[in-house]
Amino acid sequence: MSDTHTLDTLIQSLRRLPGVGVRSAQRMAFHLLQHDREGAQLLSRALQDAVAQVRHCTLCHTFTEAEVCATCSDPRRDATKLCVVETPADQAALERTAAFKGRYFVLMGKLSPLDGIGPRDIGVAKLIERASDGVVQEVILATNFTAEGEATAHVIGQALKSRGFTVTRLARGVPAGSELEYVDLGTIAHALVDRR
Amino acid sequence: MSDTHTLDTLIQSLRRLPGVGVRSAQRMAFHLLQHDREGAQLLSRALQDAVAQVRHCTLCHTFTEAEVCATCSDPRRDATKLCVVETPADQAALERTAAFKGRYFVLMGKLSPLDGIGPRDIGVAKLIERASDGVVQEVILATNFTAEGEATAHVIGQALKSRGFTVTRLARGVPAGSELEYVDLGTIAHALVDRR
Repeated sequence: MSDTHTLDTLIQSLRRLPGVGVRSAQRMAFHLLQHDREGAQLLSRALQDAVAQVRHCTLCHTFTEAEVCATCSDPRRDATKLCVVETPADQAALERTAAFKGRYFVLMGKLSPLDGIGPRDIGVAKLIERASDGVVQEVILATNFTAEGEATAHVIGQALKSRGFTVTRLARGVPAGSELEYVDLGTIAHALVDRR
Repeated sequence: MSDTHTLDTLIQSLRRLPGVGVRSAQRMAFHLLQHDREGAQLLSRALQDAVAQVRHCTLCHTFTEAEVCATCSDPRRDATKLCVVETPADQAALERTAAFKGRYFVLMGKLSPLDGIGPRDIGVAKLIERASDGVVQEVILATNFTAEGEATAHVIGQALKSRGFTVTRLARGVPAGSELEYVDLGTIAHALVDRR
């Protein structure tokens, strides 16, 4: 309809969000306009501010507003250990465990040849440069245990090992709290191979 | 973290969208900042424009940028029939059938006493005023066939009938293409009662 041009544009723009189809976008637009115009304005400003101010940490590549992010500039963190993760969300999951006190390198992606994402796009060269600071002694690969995450870990691992770095990978095995009967075969097989 | 204030604000703002939890909001924010900053700016502008320009049609209460929406001002539509729906999305569903050529009244909600939404909030008085234009001869209740939609239809129907309006309700029955064996009992019972 010609008299709802801005509404149509809003629905189209909301569809650019991941996981939002035309029906969700419609529901979001109607909700904001009917019940939460203040929220719409907050979101509009937040988007503008984030685009203007959020950039990548020059050391670990994660999102930050500063030159170097808070984790990289924290002197209490162990600079000899560098943990490689796919996304800031994965980094946050590791942080919640409070089991790692080293530094991070965030790939901001994973190898995905089908989508045209190769080693260059996930910054392998940048990672090698970062690991070559003379302080890092161990690189821990904490990419996801999906096909793409495993491929990413393999490629990065090869590249680092060929340059003499000590490379480790998160342990694969039976999750805490699970019964063997209900664990998938691949996981049990890996747990057997990696037994200690 | 202190160095990701605008990112945190963006995630919080995205959570105001219906159906978006903290993980989806994170994923949306990361996606926009990493892969679609142009989309973020488009969305920001679209939100601002929509809040500034979208208002309610003075006749049918739906979203529009004009004083009166395109449907209400279309002279080819049958002004003697007024169809009452809950939302613009419901109106769009009816329009897609091309089976109704009358006018609409969009409640922009439904009765929901538990959420504190009473007859005043869904504009029953406004609907009665709209139906009293001397042209409308039949009011068709097309609220949803949920508990709340049925209650809404009942309350509106009573209010209109007591003022002498002809009120009809969308037929309840077995959906096109379905086999009785798989249709729920309530629907079959209603289809029996409303048989013709």
